[in-house]
Amino acid sequence: MEPVLIGGAWRAAAGVGAFHAFDPAADRALPDEFPVSAWPDLDAALAAAAAAAPALAATEPETIARCLEDYARRIEEDRGALVALAAQETGLPAEPRLNSVELPRAANQLRAAATAVRERSWLLPTIDTKAGIRSCHGPLGAPIAVFGPNNFPLAFNAVAGSDFASALGARNPVIAKAHPSHPGTSRRLARHAHDAVLAAGLPPASVQLFYQCSHEDGLRLVSDPRLGALAFTGSRAGGLALKAAADAAGKPSYLELSSINPVFVMPGALAERGLEIAGELHASCTLGAGQFCTSPGVVVLPAGTDADAFVAAAREKFAAHAPGLLLNAGVREHLEQSLAALERAGAERLVGGTAVAPGIRFEATLLRADAERFVAEPGLQREAFGPATLLVLARDAEAMRHVATALEGNLTATIYSARDGRDDAAYAALAAILRGKAGRLLNDKMPTGVAVSAAMVHGGPYPATGHPGFTAVGMPAAIRRFAALHGYDAVRDARLPQELQDANPLRIVRCVDGAWTV
Amino acid sequence: MEPVLIGGAWRAAAGVGAFHAFDPAADRALPDEFPVSAWPDLDAALAAAAAAAPALAATEPETIARCLEDYARRIEEDRGALVALAAQETGLPAEPRLNSVELPRAANQLRAAATAVRERSWLLPTIDTKAGIRSCHGPLGAPIAVFGPNNFPLAFNAVAGSDFASALGARNPVIAKAHPSHPGTSRRLARHAHDAVLAAGLPPASVQLFYQCSHEDGLRLVSDPRLGALAFTGSRAGGLALKAAADAAGKPSYLELSSINPVFVMPGALAERGLEIAGELHASCTLGAGQFCTSPGVVVLPAGTDADAFVAAAREKFAAHAPGLLLNAGVREHLEQSLAALERAGAERLVGGTAVAPGIRFEATLLRADAERFVAEPGLQREAFGPATLLVLARDAEAMRHVATALEGNLTATIYSARDGRDDAAYAALAAILRGKAGRLLNDKMPTGVAVSAAMVHGGPYPATGHPGFTAVGMPAAIRRFAALHGYDAVRDARLPQELQDANPLRIVRCVDGAWTV
Repeated sequence: MEPVLIGGAWRAAAGVGAFHAFDPAADRALPDEFPVSAWPDLDAALAAAAAAAPALAATEPETIARCLEDYARRIEEDRGALVALAAQETGLPAEPRLNSVELPRAANQLRAAATAVRERSWLLPTIDTKAGIRSCHGPLGAPIAVFGPNNFPLAFNAVAGSDFASALGARNPVIAKAHPSHPGTSRRLARHAHDAVLAAGLPPASVQLFYQCSHEDGLRLVSDPRLGALAFTGSRAGGLALKAAADAAGKPSYLELSSINPVFVMPGALAERGLEIAGELHASCTLGAGQFCTSPGVVVLPAGTDADAFVAAAREKFAAHAPGLLLNAGVREHLEQSLAALERAGAERLVGGTAVAPGIRFEATLLRADAERFVAEPGLQREAFGPATLLVLARDAEAMRHVATALEGNLTATIYSARDGRDDAAYAALAAILRGKAGRLLNDKMPTGVAVSAAMVHGGPYPATGHPGFTAVGMPAAIRRFAALHGYDAVRDARLPQELQDANPLRIVRCVDGAWTV
Repeated sequence: MEPVLIGGAWRAAAGVGAFHAFDPAADRALPDEFPVSAWPDLDAALAAAAAAAPALAATEPETIARCLEDYARRIEEDRGALVALAAQETGLPAEPRLNSVELPRAANQLRAAATAVRERSWLLPTIDTKAGIRSCHGPLGAPIAVFGPNNFPLAFNAVAGSDFASALGARNPVIAKAHPSHPGTSRRLARHAHDAVLAAGLPPASVQLFYQCSHEDGLRLVSDPRLGALAFTGSRAGGLALKAAADAAGKPSYLELSSINPVFVMPGALAERGLEIAGELHASCTLGAGQFCTSPGVVVLPAGTDADAFVAAAREKFAAHAPGLLLNAGVREHLEQSLAALERAGAERLVGGTAVAPGIRFEATLLRADAERFVAEPGLQREAFGPATLLVLARDAEAMRHVATALEGNLTATIYSARDGRDDAAYAALAAILRGKAGRLLNDKMPTGVAVSAAMVHGGPYPATGHPGFTAVGMPAAIRRFAALHGYDAVRDARLPQELQDANPLRIVRCVDGAWTV
């Protein structure tokens, strides 16, 4: 049985059961056995993290930055083994996905957090010299529970991704719950994280890891008085249950839940380059077998001969696509349930929709519904996580706006419009509606990529996330999720954090008496 | 019956009852009758606000700024009548409190919001030129329900205070629920707000007002799908009930609840100037009859002869203090209940504790408990809203830290230390604990004032508020509570909000490729 990382050391779990990782390509369980932790594990993790929190909050930012960078280096040095393990546990291709995209992304994200920590760019130091009051963000000073998703074993791993880097960047201990779909990868990452923590001289319990627990113990963890906040990426049902428990205990929660990422193709764009866009849709929807939180799940088109050509082209491409490997049997089961629910809600299946062997594979799937039905039937907004897209045919521009108005909150919304300006008037009206429906508004490109950039917004209105004012990706903003706003009133200069001292010893940008200045 | 302001006009309420304001000095009801709104009023307000939201979100910031400034001017011009009405409804002194403190504060707060709106300082525009992505804060695009408190009829009024200015400053419609303790003042302020809205040409339903509703309708309002967010200032029980309803519907809520604002007097400070500090405590605790959210409700002292002298001096001053006027009979009732609960929890009453006539008055009240008892008994952390303070005697510096560790979240925490540095070592250990317990940390002054400043933090950890990362006072940060984070990915330049366009036509400070620049 693999050990858990609790209390600053690897040790045997207080387990109530065990599970195996699964190789979806071979459709068989992998040999290593991982424990399902019982409450004493979680309780011990909370106690150790709460005890470590004050020392971690008082740690020099430079030490935290070096730890994050060291961790990034260790991940890169172990590249071969990590990629092979992740590929085996998830079925995602080693090249280019895991080795050339995800692993560099994970390392660079840790480095971006280190830079933000070093530059203090997440703090927003604000000084009123006349009133003698000052404010800046600071550590929450309590453990952050990070629940990782199934679909990014490296870049969004609970013990390596943006939530992890943000929480530790704000100098809070992390209690990571690995996704049980890639426990071995998580274990290997946590080993590097732990080594980096020890090498930097951080409190050993700054990073902890367990693999699985009961639903009840998960709720108990996120509502524990010792916890600071919750970060969760995954299914809507699971996330909302944890949010309810955290809410009742007064704990902030940052969730990234389901999103159908609507794409609107305006008439001019459809006439101008419909087939090109159909190709982009196919590529985006089948990338990683569509297992992205920003996969285009709904495409809204103005009905007519251009749309007919678009649908025919997309249908052909989807039909010709070799069935993609899913992450695990659970994803396949949910996808089948979701597609069945969409069909019951009135969607017509055009192509695909069937699981196939060898391995856990699924056909690229295209569905169709008309706009009136979509507006009337909330069930058509159900996410089908995997390589599936619903085409929605609208009578005219007004009907497209009705679809936009009916949408729930999403991570992204995309508008394709003509290059020659003929869609511009209708664009404005449609964009004004979509602006309130999504965290990121895109023009003329599919939403699948989420760049690691200070300007990224990977967030959006409920129920895509739990709060529309934050982003899960992009330093320094993502770090601020795990911060408290600290005010200082008449506090003597030498007692202030350096970033607020009169002499500005760190030479950082601050807002002093209303002006940003160094 | 006074009208409500719903749907852009003053009209008769869909009422389920009526109530009168109350004159606490005369201990009698005032003649004007105000309606208790039934659900159709709230439903109409939500519908009108939701309909107004898109146009308001698309309004030029300059128009919003002028509206806020015009409203401030109207409040100042109507100074005499507003102050007289507020004084009658609350018993607060016209001078200096209402006329020279609160009314200028209310007007200046609206002007500070206008400045932040005009300068775009709440937006944090962030641009990645290489990736072609941009982000900034924008309107939530949905109505904000603002529930005002009883204790600041002007500066924290639901239709004039910081929550109001912040929500409208972010270009969201406001549905204000007046506090029923000063409905006439609220009615008069709303008239000016409405006139300013109409004069500026904003959608008429940008500001709406009702006075009272049932508990159930309040919960229904804050969980309505049309709502954007909730701001509430008031009792813990009321606020947490609303928060639970808002949470379940995925609505952000910003609460300012109870706080006991602990004050720690270190041994050196006590020896050096104990009697002076006792005088400051008396002044702070009896100001406005202690009816401040930042009134010092707990004072922690090292036991000994210096503490004995402090207690004797405070006792004398409290005993000599003329009983202060409370806001209403409800405050008196809660205060009596809270004091009885504190005594049951082990506090000893030293002086005061009794309601007296004429009018709704209450004696300045001093209680005492020892530190061990305080640590063991959470009931001693109950807020007694009014002119009451609990003195906690601790054996030594370690016992004082145990008290700090046992504290719930508060708005403020204060440390008095010696001027000659003899308390400095113990200060550091105590401040490290208190930093995690309060939004604002003070040195050597009572916490009662809340300056309107960009650097102010009027917030703190749960259960003092609902989220430790925000402040209710201080522009521009307070505005960001009612904002969504808006990302733009490959959006064509002319379609971007001006603050994100390449040419920076507004000449505002932005973070471009990692550097803050104009």
